[in-house]
Amino acid sequence: MDYIQQRFSVPFEYRVYFTSHLFQQQNPVLRQFLQADVSDNIKKIFFVIDSEVAACHPTLMDDIRQYFAANSEVILIDDMLIVPGGEACKNTDVYVHEIIAAVDEHGIDRHSYIAAIGGGAVLDMVGYAAAISHRGIRHIRMPTTVLSQNDSGVGVKNGINYNGKKNFIGTFAPPVAVFNDDHFLTTLADREWRAGIAEAVKVALIKDKQFYAWLCKNALALNRREMEPMQYQIKRCAQLHIDHIAGGDPFEKGSSRPLDFGHWSAHKVEQLSNFEIRHGEAVAMGIALDTAYSHLCGWLNEEDARLVIQLLIDLGFDITHPLMEVSDDNSPVIQGLHEFQEHLGGRLTIMLLNEIGKGEEVHHLDISLLQKASEWLKQYHQIEQQ
Amino acid sequence: MDYIQQRFSVPFEYRVYFTSHLFQQQNPVLRQFLQADVSDNIKKIFFVIDSEVAACHPTLMDDIRQYFAANSEVILIDDMLIVPGGEACKNTDVYVHEIIAAVDEHGIDRHSYIAAIGGGAVLDMVGYAAAISHRGIRHIRMPTTVLSQNDSGVGVKNGINYNGKKNFIGTFAPPVAVFNDDHFLTTLADREWRAGIAEAVKVALIKDKQFYAWLCKNALALNRREMEPMQYQIKRCAQLHIDHIAGGDPFEKGSSRPLDFGHWSAHKVEQLSNFEIRHGEAVAMGIALDTAYSHLCGWLNEEDARLVIQLLIDLGFDITHPLMEVSDDNSPVIQGLHEFQEHLGGRLTIMLLNEIGKGEEVHHLDISLLQKASEWLKQYHQIEQQ
Ligand SMILES: NC(=O)c1ccc[n+]([C@@H]2O[C@H](COP(=O)([O-])OP(=O)(O)OC[C@H]3O[C@@H](n4cnc5c(N)ncnc54)[C@H](O)[C@@H]3O)[C@@H](O)[C@H]2O)c1
Ligand SMILES: NC(=O)c1ccc[n+]([C@@H]2O[C@H](COP(=O)([O-])OP(=O)(O)OC[C@H]3O[C@@H](n4cnc5c(N)ncnc54)[C@H](O)[C@@H]3O)[C@@H](O)[C@H]2O)c1
Ligand SMILES: [Zn+2]
Ligand SMILES: [Zn+2]
Repeated sequence: MDYIQQRFSVPFEYRVYFTSHLFQQQNPVLRQFLQADVSDNIKKIFFVIDSEVAACHPTLMDDIRQYFAANSEVILIDDMLIVPGGEACKNTDVYVHEIIAAVDEHGIDRHSYIAAIGGGAVLDMVGYAAAISHRGIRHIRMPTTVLSQNDSGVGVKNGINYNGKKNFIGTFAPPVAVFNDDHFLTTLADREWRAGIAEAVKVALIKDKQFYAWLCKNALALNRREMEPMQYQIKRCAQLHIDHIAGGDPFEKGSSRPLDFGHWSAHKVEQLSNFEIRHGEAVAMGIALDTAYSHLCGWLNEEDARLVIQLLIDLGFDITHPLMEVSDDNSPVIQGLHEFQEHLGGRLTIMLLNEIGKGEEVHHLDISLLQKASEWLKQYHQIEQQ
Repeated sequence: MDYIQQRFSVPFEYRVYFTSHLFQQQNPVLRQFLQADVSDNIKKIFFVIDSEVAACHPTLMDDIRQYFAANSEVILIDDMLIVPGGEACKNTDVYVHEIIAAVDEHGIDRHSYIAAIGGGAVLDMVGYAAAISHRGIRHIRMPTTVLSQNDSGVGVKNGINYNGKKNFIGTFAPPVAVFNDDHFLTTLADREWRAGIAEAVKVALIKDKQFYAWLCKNALALNRREMEPMQYQIKRCAQLHIDHIAGGDPFEKGSSRPLDFGHWSAHKVEQLSNFEIRHGEAVAMGIALDTAYSHLCGWLNEEDARLVIQLLIDLGFDITHPLMEVSDDNSPVIQGLHEFQEHLGGRLTIMLLNEIGKGEEVHHLDISLLQKASEWLKQYHQIEQQ
């Protein structure tokens, strides 16, 4: 057979910075990044900001203007774009087109930056727009929620929704830098503050026993919104996600999704609740269900299983919900399981807990065991509520 | 400073196959690729076809149906999408949306394939749609023009136009395989057949003296549309492009564009002619201008310069055009030069010829020398036409 073999690797690198008050003049973090990222080309920077963040931080745009007035390595495009925060910005391609139009109007080229300040939804949408403009404009992320600082914002994926389907359109496109500024977290609603911690529980359970023990010890402090444990939680969780991406299959060419512990049922429940249940809240319930299953299938001992559930409760999560219950083959999550299997192209891969800190993949879930797991959880839940 | 460093490489590989009559049952090339690309997942394949190719090869769709009826490793989606050939399919996002809608409707997942059969324009548009669907569906290219078989189709870029601007929207996304079927070339218009050869002249001049000598020897046979030298030309040119991508900066993160010899003026002339002048035709004139300049600036000797021009003439190219002439600072190509510099973010990088087979980059072009180069070419052209 007559062919030429092509083979190459594309290197990517970026830093995830942890800071407070990024745009204060005396804060050197952003300035040093921009100065180090030198070239002969004139660089512009264009900001897209989550509407809630702009509302909760009314001086933000002025702070940015003052910051760049005093830092001339990059030209600030004075015109900033405010987009609706949350899923609303991903449910349409209107904002993607607004960004592309801005790229055109302001002559933002491949040497320039598009910076996004906001929750995971805004970052996903802006990251996508940046990735497809000029085949990829340098993208800076400034995540403002717990979830986006400890998980989604430090990764390589972006996307928008299409026809009611999450992340149907998107790309893999690493940012050039991520700036986690904890000051933004002070204005989060309690539910948002909490929801992101579910990802830390997830990754600790499958990868890091020590972090899990730390979470158990600090759960009530996190629940009380203490900032110091939150900073540690974010950094450790981000580190685990970053290591996972680098060590594995960053652009997910294979079908294994080892970080999706607790996620198969969560996706369905989120969707069925019309996203009334937040992703992290659904993940917490998904973790509870899969932990119960891991115990009942003979992997995790009962005490460990109970302690996981207790951690979720201490963090303030609900551990189940009517939508999450498995009573028979027609229960919504079982339907979700079938859809997930179809989505994976026929072969199911689900992460379970072998022991605390150690996940293991299986290719089959037993429906009657899932029913028992659901029952086990419900009883626990009822005892809790008494 | 507090940060986590992320660093990883993403490996890509694919083969560029050379064959005839890809969909004939006895041709094993496609079947073997599909069989080797195994997994546990059910795979579908969706075809998008250039309207001109479909018109010139009226049995194509039936051939595809019969081929897949006999090859069950992949499920053919019977519904194929015919899109207008040429730039028309890139000047709107309508066809991208039609492909995304088909992905949704037919449940085409990340294990499935989107195959494009057509010229470079159709491949660019389909490659883009495949890259953004589910963050990248496996994309197979079946280029049907000389340019797309020897250059664009074997590379990693895709895109569509926006607001009259070429490739404003797009990504870097390697295909999973490329099938160059020379039978398609038999139905090309003469201009299309010829235009693609300009890229071979370009890459030979900057990288491969022997290939250049081969081109000089075979120019008239290529001009007469002999298939054997065409096959060799395509394979050698594809090899040089493939090596260049693998050896360099595949996703063009730097600002160097060493393969763009002869292209700075070509882009402008194409655009000013409303794409009446084909890309390859413009590149041939751009090569002529930059060759003349390389001679007049003291790099290339006169004989070599004249032989390059003669090669272009033997291949049937025009070596200049009123739009390509440089008379003063307001000449269109000089404006193009300024725009190109701006596009590069301030610093110009232009490839010139040091000697045959050896390009070298400069960061400045002398306008008065460009005028002389233009004059030199015009005289040559007039002598030729007598
Ligand atoms: N790209 C990935 O790898 C990845 C991974 C997981 C999740 N996600 C995506 O992330 C999104 C969820 O992100 P999220 O959990 O960050 O929530 P979100 O972006 O939906 O934000 C939740 C709400 O908080 C508001 N908000 C954001 N920051 C705030 C602040 N500092 N103060 C006050 N309000 C603020 C937002 O405007 C919004 O109303 C989903 O779209 C999900 O698909 C992406
Ligand atoms: N992605 C890249 O790296 C890259 C590089 C260079 C050029 N390009 C793009 O490639 C496009 C040009 O591609 P092209 O030169 O292949 O031309 P084209 O795709 O514009 O096709 C030219 C014409 O030939 C027709 N055609 C195609 N195959 C045919 C066949 N076998 N028989 C008869 N007619 C046929 C088409 O329908 C069209 O009308 C431009 O859009 C350019 O931007 C992309
Ligand atoms: Zn999650
Ligand atoms: Zn070209």
